[in-house]
Amino acid sequence: MEQMERYRALAEEALHHCLPDGAGYSRTLFDAARYSLLAGGKRLRPCLVLAAAERAGAALEEALPYACAMEMIHTYSLIHDDLPAMDNDTLRRGRPTSHVVYGEAMAILAGDCLLTHAFVHMAGAARRHPERAQAHLRAAGRVAEAAEAMAAGQAVDVLCEKQGAQAGREADQLKFIHENKTAAMIRGALLAGAELGDADDALLAALSLYGNRLGVAFQVADDILDACSTSQQMGKTVGKDAAAGKLTYVSLFGVEKSKARLEALTEEAIASVAPVDRDGFFASLARELLTRKQ
Amino acid sequence: MEQMERYRALAEEALHHCLPDGAGYSRTLFDAARYSLLAGGKRLRPCLVLAAAERAGAALEEALPYACAMEMIHTYSLIHDDLPAMDNDTLRRGRPTSHVVYGEAMAILAGDCLLTHAFVHMAGAARRHPERAQAHLRAAGRVAEAAEAMAAGQAVDVLCEKQGAQAGREADQLKFIHENKTAAMIRGALLAGAELGDADDALLAALSLYGNRLGVAFQVADDILDACSTSQQMGKTVGKDAAAGKLTYVSLFGVEKSKARLEALTEEAIASVAPVDRDGFFASLARELLTRKQ
Repeated sequence: MEQMERYRALAEEALHHCLPDGAGYSRTLFDAARYSLLAGGKRLRPCLVLAAAERAGAALEEALPYACAMEMIHTYSLIHDDLPAMDNDTLRRGRPTSHVVYGEAMAILAGDCLLTHAFVHMAGAARRHPERAQAHLRAAGRVAEAAEAMAAGQAVDVLCEKQGAQAGREADQLKFIHENKTAAMIRGALLAGAELGDADDALLAALSLYGNRLGVAFQVADDILDACSTSQQMGKTVGKDAAAGKLTYVSLFGVEKSKARLEALTEEAIASVAPVDRDGFFASLARELLTRKQ
Repeated sequence: MEQMERYRALAEEALHHCLPDGAGYSRTLFDAARYSLLAGGKRLRPCLVLAAAERAGAALEEALPYACAMEMIHTYSLIHDDLPAMDNDTLRRGRPTSHVVYGEAMAILAGDCLLTHAFVHMAGAARRHPERAQAHLRAAGRVAEAAEAMAAGQAVDVLCEKQGAQAGREADQLKFIHENKTAAMIRGALLAGAELGDADDALLAALSLYGNRLGVAFQVADDILDACSTSQQMGKTVGKDAAAGKLTYVSLFGVEKSKARLEALTEEAIASVAPVDRDGFFASLARELLTRKQ
């Protein structure tokens, strides 16, 4: 998709300039933050910020700091999730994880720093557009709410893994995890971008529903990939879900049912965005994610 | 000080209502966040937000969410600092630390949650005052910048402890740590409050200088207390700085010189705020902190 490539290139370029050097004593901290932030990745959340901003009529230039903020927050969550006390993962985006390279203390701080800098960065963008302070506040609020939901989802994921899921409530608990840990940030990216364009309620509602379904679909696809692909293809450790007895769509319903669910969710996502999907971009994106290999 | 007690009571009450219940699956996460947030403490940063807001003419009601945000961020930093990978501390504010009670994974997430919720909370406050969006954005920006400086200071503190200070640059490195790890949040609290009152440049400059000096004085006092008091008095492990070979004012210059420096810094802080210290509140506060026992 040409349009996605354009967003991705814009986001990638902006990500290279969104962190301070941290010259002097704090250089190591910002180096560690940059190491994880610039390790590649699909840049899905930044692209969604830009796509929604453009759809709502905002300038991409104005939306870029929010795109970067979403990726900084996503990256902080990966760094903390990979820590020994959490998933204890040593490979991410094809490279050793932060704590392997910088040690555990610095990895915790690099995550804290990325989460914090996301808000420093958005505040800076808002200062450059004082006449649009309200739109910026709404957008930053969407980002903050998404980040909070993500932490809640991760907490429940961790508790499930350590204590086991609540008997008889596995499907419901899994829904909570998927909607919060993964979908909230997908949905939040769309809403933040749309708020910058002063989107009306219809557009916000459609993107919200689309984002939630797309986000859950994305996580189901991830569960399938974890079960069915190799570490080399994915650039991160795979097969760990099953090894850890983790609650996933695949562990609960099997691969075939998961694939059917992924297709259904994709169609539901497309249907919910259809009324506002002028050029079919959001539908194409959902179909592309459905068939992703990593 | 009666005025401080009034601020403290207001802040304490607001802190009890600033976190969501996290009903359902994510209850444990918010319980863990609340456990640390409501463990008492001096509430210095919230009080400074309120004092500066009142001095600048803002409504205390409007400043309270920022007071809570500063305390949430301060608390997240304590939780993460206490982790086994960092200071490995088991006692804080007279109670077992977060990771002792909730486990390491949940402690990391409780910290993440508090940092994130600080921004959710400020965004909510800003939404209630749409006509004052610019002042709210400036205040939230001050909070974010202070939190980032704090993380940078903590990173340098950790590196110094693990690798030793850079030979010949100990005093300079210690200055960076004190100004960033501790003083930035003291200064940031004052600036955030002042921004809400649309403070002029003279007031901002005076509070900024006062905050920096008061903050460094506060840390020097902490170093002295760590060297000279008991865990029972302090409600946290003491004497650890020396045991860990930590770079502190006391380890570098000794107790006597530290006490002299503390007095000098206090006088400098008072002098810098004098031009705007109408009723002498900020001077009294500095003198009170100079003689604190915990």
